[in-house]
Amino acid sequence: MVSKLRTLTQDGDLVTLRRWLDETGTLDITDALARLAPDERAVPFRLLSKDRALAVFEALDPVHQQQLLEGLRDERVAELVRGLAPDDQARLLDEVPAAVATRLQAGLPADQRAAAAALLGYPAGSAGRIMTPDFTSVRASMTVADALAKLRRGGRRPTRAQTLVLPVTDDQRRLTGVVELAELVTAAPTTRIRDLLAPETLWVRADDDQERAARLIQEADLIALPVVDREHRLVGLITVDDAMEVVELEDTEDFSRAGGAEPLEQPYLAAGVFALARKRAPWLLLLAIAFTLTVTVLHSFENALAAVTMLAFFIPLLIGTGGNSGAQAATLVVRAMAVGEVRLTDLTRIIWRETRVGLLLGGLLAAVAFPVVALLYTVPMATVIALTLVCICTWASFTGGLLPLVAKRVGIDPAVVSTPLIATLVDATGLVIYFLVAYAVMSDQLGGLAALTG
Amino acid sequence: MVSKLRTLTQDGDLVTLRRWLDETGTLDITDALARLAPDERAVPFRLLSKDRALAVFEALDPVHQQQLLEGLRDERVAELVRGLAPDDQARLLDEVPAAVATRLQAGLPADQRAAAAALLGYPAGSAGRIMTPDFTSVRASMTVADALAKLRRGGRRPTRAQTLVLPVTDDQRRLTGVVELAELVTAAPTTRIRDLLAPETLWVRADDDQERAARLIQEADLIALPVVDREHRLVGLITVDDAMEVVELEDTEDFSRAGGAEPLEQPYLAAGVFALARKRAPWLLLLAIAFTLTVTVLHSFENALAAVTMLAFFIPLLIGTGGNSGAQAATLVVRAMAVGEVRLTDLTRIIWRETRVGLLLGGLLAAVAFPVVALLYTVPMATVIALTLVCICTWASFTGGLLPLVAKRVGIDPAVVSTPLIATLVDATGLVIYFLVAYAVMSDQLGGLAALTG
Repeated sequence: MVSKLRTLTQDGDLVTLRRWLDETGTLDITDALARLAPDERAVPFRLLSKDRALAVFEALDPVHQQQLLEGLRDERVAELVRGLAPDDQARLLDEVPAAVATRLQAGLPADQRAAAAALLGYPAGSAGRIMTPDFTSVRASMTVADALAKLRRGGRRPTRAQTLVLPVTDDQRRLTGVVELAELVTAAPTTRIRDLLAPETLWVRADDDQERAARLIQEADLIALPVVDREHRLVGLITVDDAMEVVELEDTEDFSRAGGAEPLEQPYLAAGVFALARKRAPWLLLLAIAFTLTVTVLHSFENALAAVTMLAFFIPLLIGTGGNSGAQAATLVVRAMAVGEVRLTDLTRIIWRETRVGLLLGGLLAAVAFPVVALLYTVPMATVIALTLVCICTWASFTGGLLPLVAKRVGIDPAVVSTPLIATLVDATGLVIYFLVAYAVMSDQLGGLAALTG
Repeated sequence: MVSKLRTLTQDGDLVTLRRWLDETGTLDITDALARLAPDERAVPFRLLSKDRALAVFEALDPVHQQQLLEGLRDERVAELVRGLAPDDQARLLDEVPAAVATRLQAGLPADQRAAAAALLGYPAGSAGRIMTPDFTSVRASMTVADALAKLRRGGRRPTRAQTLVLPVTDDQRRLTGVVELAELVTAAPTTRIRDLLAPETLWVRADDDQERAARLIQEADLIALPVVDREHRLVGLITVDDAMEVVELEDTEDFSRAGGAEPLEQPYLAAGVFALARKRAPWLLLLAIAFTLTVTVLHSFENALAAVTMLAFFIPLLIGTGGNSGAQAATLVVRAMAVGEVRLTDLTRIIWRETRVGLLLGGLLAAVAFPVVALLYTVPMATVIALTLVCICTWASFTGGLLPLVAKRVGIDPAVVSTPLIATLVDATGLVIYFLVAYAVMSDQLGGLAALTG
């Protein structure tokens, strides 16, 4: 698809290119455009019909939207930006450099400019940023016929948010309920809105976290969620498609952090090599510094290593297994927190579960490892390895269950403490466990635990 | 909330309990119930009004639904299951033991039983499993008034899927288009449906993967997606709320696998300690076995370790950093694949990017590490560490970018090769790199590379 589009564009055969564009779906065109080099995109985009161009532009990521705008004439730019929903306009304005944003805003009619500016007034990451201020509200005392008439009166084709769910307000514009369009069309025209209200009214405040709003939409299977201000006055609606986007972004953020990288905030292939390195360097450096703890620990057990070189052979296996065990626990707990299954008050329950799981897993690994190591190396060595596996797995699983909750408690994203961070922390403590066990078991070769203290 | 519910239930003060339930939101009740012990749930659940009970039951996870059913009388069970949408019925029937499923199905009216059985006939994970077969379709030749009349004719309150989007079919029941309810209510009653059709008709086949359907709904901002059979006959609709649930499950699966654990398939706190251990043991064991490679590598460099004990100190730091660097690359690529930004054809582009990113990151770490190690240890040691960091980071980043794509190519879930697996693979190769560099740099102490081969 991409290579086809690229070939047609480079050949300059505009007739064939236009035919190809007509026969191809909007999503496929969007996808192919995003994969072209930025300067290749303008030609095929200009050949799209007006409606098609807007649909493709809407579906593009803000980064690609911005790149595309750079190659277009000013009036075309204004037209495209005007065609976006207010929340998408705000998102684009937020991404482009300030000078470009001012130029884009200047091209908008006064009411759209005000709407976009209002959304940009809410803090980043808040529900207010992703809501649409473009809704139709009704009164509880209206009849179904009144409400449908009000919907039709809009004149131009209504947006989805304006029709799927109608918020119901009192005469101070305060939210009192919601009614779904589906209820309206199947009710008798003389029915009062108050008799069709959804049994429960869910809402969020404009300054609430947008993830909270998105998870609420997801859990309650909503189509749209009303957003209110501090005085409970209705200010907008968040629709389910925007909620899905938020959930995807939050999941991407968790997934990246769990892998020890900051989220990219742009599509992977759109990010340059330096941008990729910048997002990863701080974590990698921080973790490497944390790893210097392991150097210190090993340095302090230098005598043991010099006496029994064999001890060094098992270092990666033991700390790696500890890291994996801790990562498993942390991953499951972080995800359970993200989807709302687990919260801070479950702390003791989780730690108790994870400690037992770690003990079980460590016991299993020890049972497998003991005979193998006893056969290939020595029985004391096998004893050290088996005991260390039990201790390390239990400790790692305990730590992996505990740390995400601690992070949440002190206001850090729990995803940050998943895999790499846990692995690093468990590595240093795991080494201490390993050498303590070794001194206890191999007292004849290492001088016993007394050799450590004295 | 949970402790309040638990106290009220244990006190047996049913009047206060009932008042509390009346004043509390459906989602909060659902959440509190799920956190009670299974045998504590029946009492508060029985006190809910009929509508409320169904809403709470719908919002519960299938595991909790099943546990709750066990404590209720047969007629109540039948009533609750009857109240579920066909796709939710199928999901529940799929979870419960076969004997219970037969009993539950027996309690359903013939048409619902047939609908649930039809859904269960599609393979697990297919679009057919999550669609609702309960939709209202219209013909292109109908007027808006005809279509609205057909919607109202249903009699009982229509489901959401029946109203949000109306699929348009020909006289062979083949899908020809879709029209959104929002278009219907704002158009003149005499307008023909054919003039209101959405510009593009997207659809999936019933045996397509459900993740594909969900991502399509997400990318195209759909409210509902028609599902067709091999003859392009309409068989159902997938609504956006079910798509959100699929995306969440797929993300949970990726997240768990990336952390080295199989997904739980039930809420974290509902899974027993043995169930948790069973999901984690295979991976942990497999990775531990892979780690034995590191034992072999270290064993074969025994002489170097005996000659320069200091070499052992840096093992965790070097292989840990390699693992982290590989995990970062793998995580970003796996996520980009999951959300459709990257695919197999991007292979060379990704590898080239990741190799350069790894080189940059390795260079940065080497620049930081060299002076520190030179100061605290020796200059040759600092040279070994710096060179190894550059090589390991580049190699790990390359591997981390490559393996998810290779996994996908051979039909394995790319998430499987994230963090722990990459870390394990990079560990063994990283050690080889480390000792080769050491032999090259410290030839005076170790006898040089020649000592290895001869």
